[in-house]
Amino acid sequence: MPTNPESRLDQSHDQNLKSWVESANLPSSDFPIQNLPLVTFTFDGKHDEPTRCGVAIGDEIVDLMAAAEEGVLDEDLQINGPDSFVDAYDLMSAGNDYMAELRSWAINLLQAGNMKLAKDKKLRTRLMRRIDEVIPLPPMAIQNYTDFYASIHHATNVGGMFRPENPLLPNYKHVPIGYHGRASSILASGSDIVRPNGQTKADDAPAPSFGPSTMLDYELEIGALIAMGNELAEPIALAEADDFLFGLCLVNDWSARDIQKWEYQPLGPFLAKNFSTTISPFVITLAALEPFRCPGATRPEGDTQPLEYLRHAEDAARGGFDINLEVLIRTEQMREKDQKAFRLSKGSFRDMYWTMGQLLAHHTSGGCNMMPGDLIASGTISGPTRESRGCLLELSWNGHGPDGKPLPRTPIELPSGEKRTFLEDGDEIIMRAWCERPGFRRIGFGECSGMIVGE
Amino acid sequence: MPTNPESRLDQSHDQNLKSWVESANLPSSDFPIQNLPLVTFTFDGKHDEPTRCGVAIGDEIVDLMAAAEEGVLDEDLQINGPDSFVDAYDLMSAGNDYMAELRSWAINLLQAGNMKLAKDKKLRTRLMRRIDEVIPLPPMAIQNYTDFYASIHHATNVGGMFRPENPLLPNYKHVPIGYHGRASSILASGSDIVRPNGQTKADDAPAPSFGPSTMLDYELEIGALIAMGNELAEPIALAEADDFLFGLCLVNDWSARDIQKWEYQPLGPFLAKNFSTTISPFVITLAALEPFRCPGATRPEGDTQPLEYLRHAEDAARGGFDINLEVLIRTEQMREKDQKAFRLSKGSFRDMYWTMGQLLAHHTSGGCNMMPGDLIASGTISGPTRESRGCLLELSWNGHGPDGKPLPRTPIELPSGEKRTFLEDGDEIIMRAWCERPGFRRIGFGECSGMIVGE
Repeated sequence: MPTNPESRLDQSHDQNLKSWVESANLPSSDFPIQNLPLVTFTFDGKHDEPTRCGVAIGDEIVDLMAAAEEGVLDEDLQINGPDSFVDAYDLMSAGNDYMAELRSWAINLLQAGNMKLAKDKKLRTRLMRRIDEVIPLPPMAIQNYTDFYASIHHATNVGGMFRPENPLLPNYKHVPIGYHGRASSILASGSDIVRPNGQTKADDAPAPSFGPSTMLDYELEIGALIAMGNELAEPIALAEADDFLFGLCLVNDWSARDIQKWEYQPLGPFLAKNFSTTISPFVITLAALEPFRCPGATRPEGDTQPLEYLRHAEDAARGGFDINLEVLIRTEQMREKDQKAFRLSKGSFRDMYWTMGQLLAHHTSGGCNMMPGDLIASGTISGPTRESRGCLLELSWNGHGPDGKPLPRTPIELPSGEKRTFLEDGDEIIMRAWCERPGFRRIGFGECSGMIVGE
Repeated sequence: MPTNPESRLDQSHDQNLKSWVESANLPSSDFPIQNLPLVTFTFDGKHDEPTRCGVAIGDEIVDLMAAAEEGVLDEDLQINGPDSFVDAYDLMSAGNDYMAELRSWAINLLQAGNMKLAKDKKLRTRLMRRIDEVIPLPPMAIQNYTDFYASIHHATNVGGMFRPENPLLPNYKHVPIGYHGRASSILASGSDIVRPNGQTKADDAPAPSFGPSTMLDYELEIGALIAMGNELAEPIALAEADDFLFGLCLVNDWSARDIQKWEYQPLGPFLAKNFSTTISPFVITLAALEPFRCPGATRPEGDTQPLEYLRHAEDAARGGFDINLEVLIRTEQMREKDQKAFRLSKGSFRDMYWTMGQLLAHHTSGGCNMMPGDLIASGTISGPTRESRGCLLELSWNGHGPDGKPLPRTPIELPSGEKRTFLEDGDEIIMRAWCERPGFRRIGFGECSGMIVGE
């Protein structure tokens, strides 16, 4: 294993690299030539329309299926011909060595020095799509979705609501806590979120009742999409994890707190989460993220150390990802008043307790098999400060009073004069993520958004 | 809705109906002409070999793909031509009206009076496969798997281990408790089960350790496979549930109790369950089960009644299924000594607290979408008696002593002289299910089996 965390950087990370796609060179662009995320899309968003996979550059997407059909994409990069680009499944299955070659091909095609495609108007029209003229989708029909709980700040905050004297459970620093989520209800960014009905029970009510959730929340998360899978009973060692992690995206794990509170004992959250999960459609590859590696959680000397199978060795300095995060809200009134979205929180993925590699190694440690495109989400990302809390449940929380009872929540005041403790119909939640580091080009994740609608 | 539970019976349930496939007429056969379960199979069991779907009859299977190719299956029953029979997905998607027609077609083809196929030796060889010459598989790549906790006896027993004074949690009689399982590790009956490694912590140990589970258990369950799916945010009402339930199979939800105990707080079981789940390959359709309908859980007057969306109306008398169940064990020593498998428990699916219809209505009540072939399992099926407990955790449990501490477990004595508290390497667990009722032909589920192997 490389001991120098910089040893995997190459010319594709050079900040001076430019593209002939001018929009990619704007400092504000999430998708410069150093990024090149994968994106699956359709032309009209209908379920039964054929989809295709591409590479985003500036405001545009290179349609990989068209590139294969036109012979612009070398045959040895075509896996199974043009049909392999109907979504991201075949690319994810092919693994990261394949993706390195595809990245080289795309950089060569798009870099400022190579004007071949830029000058061939007909071919350019055939291959390049404007992002705002297509509908970006999840990379594929995700087959298995697992959600973790890897932020110790989040676990401590939420635990503190129920157990002020003992917020963190005894297993937390040993076991990357996770649970299986619902894959069928994973949605593309921009999809409306229908407020779920469910059973809830107020503490002082004699019996539960059924109706719309009144404590609807978002959860800011980062998701990892799996490259090659592993066979059943053949765990992925932590040292190999990078070979099995394809890339990252944003995840909003919408949560109905009132349903969750009543249903979650003893088998965990279920209907409180499975009505919808939104993901951002642009998959940021591990190669693009390489300059933004950072140490995983460093545990103070004397603190609990993880068991051997979860211990980062020489690679500890690159176990994490330094990703800036923010969550914004825009209510119906704010849209009517033409007000900008309001930032609810900002934080960093640096602050996680468990790394994606540790989550994957733990997930497979008992033999569980991963499949290409499976989604592993981090759990709510909260940092040590109040402004870095990744959900409303935490943002509006005020701890306990001297009598041991929870203090009233403080609603968040919005520029429209409205207040929010939980989400109202018409509220749009927008999550953004980006990486920046002196000497390197900033790359972005695009947005993960969704609006709450009544039934 | 029909108020007479017998009104859905038709000539296909007539006990005098016979097949020209003689093995189907033996009283011991699980698959008489009244049953006709769907089964997906391959010829050599290799992952990448093509699979196909058929209908089991006695010791044989009618290969539906071959029947379509030969024009024996009417074109209007072919959905999308012979390829629609590569597995059960298209049949499940087509819904139960389609399945009723397919059942009629199969009964006509196979009944004793119609000797056309029986006499055409060449066609018979082409269409009919001996079950013992193929490898039965799960009906399709199952996309979403949910496991419930629908036996009140199981919930009370397990709750009692942790909370002797208060075994049943306050939500149990209101909420059909469930959680999402892992779909990727669902295996066909007969697959070996590799003992998982995992984190465990003894009560008196200062820290956890990592190694093979020493408390490996089975869980006897019935699974429902979903026919047509529902759209996101469009719940399935209890009264419609039968249209969305395709059929039933046996499920063994293998569980590592020591891993489960340490990991399950606060988000539920995860690695303790996701290393493997075995299902029986023969899917018993709702049509075949019609004579064996029974009331769902009847709650004594004055007991908690379910909320409106979970209340069976006129159809209450047919909400449940009267299915006999047994679990057997055969150890390596027993095989060496040529001893028969030993019965660990026998019980009935009658004893469940929540019906499959209630589980499905609850699952979708918040808007969650089901997909064709999704699996909903009942959770461990235990009855009120000791001999009807559906897992070793319960079978070897002895309650608490007068000091409030758990009494030592009683290992189960086997005919080989061995004892079992939990499973050892080489142990094979065999689950069987069947329905019988005076005036009707007995139908069976086939077996759901798996053997524990060391790493």
